[in-house]
Amino acid sequence: MSPTQERKEILRRFMEDVWNQGRLDAVDAYLALRYTVRHDPGDPWHGKQLDAEAFKERLRVSRAPFPDQRFEIQELFADGDAVVATWLWTGTHRAELAGFPATGRQIRMSGATVYYFEGLKICGHWQIVDRLSVFQQLSADRQPG
Amino acid sequence: MSPTQERKEILRRFMEDVWNQGRLDAVDAYLALRYTVRHDPGDPWHGKQLDAEAFKERLRVSRAPFPDQRFEIQELFADGDAVVATWLWTGTHRAELAGFPATGRQIRMSGATVYYFEGLKICGHWQIVDRLSVFQQLSADRQPG
Repeated sequence: MSPTQERKEILRRFMEDVWNQGRLDAVDAYLALRYTVRHDPGDPWHGKQLDAEAFKERLRVSRAPFPDQRFEIQELFADGDAVVATWLWTGTHRAELAGFPATGRQIRMSGATVYYFEGLKICGHWQIVDRLSVFQQLSADRQPG
Repeated sequence: MSPTQERKEILRRFMEDVWNQGRLDAVDAYLALRYTVRHDPGDPWHGKQLDAEAFKERLRVSRAPFPDQRFEIQELFADGDAVVATWLWTGTHRAELAGFPATGRQIRMSGATVYYFEGLKICGHWQIVDRLSVFQQLSADRQPG
């Protein structure tokens, strides 16, 4: 298997084990010593360098409002030391997010993420998420006050 | 030059000539017979197939609120028949957009776009734009009513 193909397979497993299943114990196997959130507008960790413990905290906090969240990868594109994933996402809104108390709603969104590798370890990302669609779904039919 | 490298160069020129300079006369040189907007949440052409004339109409309408708009490509990733661009964008808000009359504000946003090629012609895209940041900038300090 080419390194390019291997990185795509690693990224598929990372998305499944870490982001879909929320397995904190799986993080160490995938991450480089430092993980840099290069660009991620609206993410509290935008611009930050994370070690494994800080990454696990981000995973815990990010998944809390949507414990059943699932990323469904649409396509993967590998070039140089990067793999780009386009994805659809669904999650049930079970805890407070950005001032919205749990609504119980099934939320959908989509995004694109560039994952950077050092060898076969993931060392950061550059990401755009369609945040507006999430806020529109959370605030639909919201009662003022 | 490899086809992969050539597609990256074509995409750079397409972004400059078509989207930055708004040259309707440049469109034909870049586009395949059909251009498919595979995914572009919030874009009026989301899901549509466009011929060159329909693409030019989209270009005209999309650029109207921000006539001086500029995409600054961050990185390009080529794989298979696709080139992925990550980009920053700036534009001065000079005409109505989504119910917001011209504010004269310099707006910034970022996004990621997968461009699909047929040979050396561009035949569609899959895109995520950080729309929320645009609405936040347009509505900041907005007076109700």
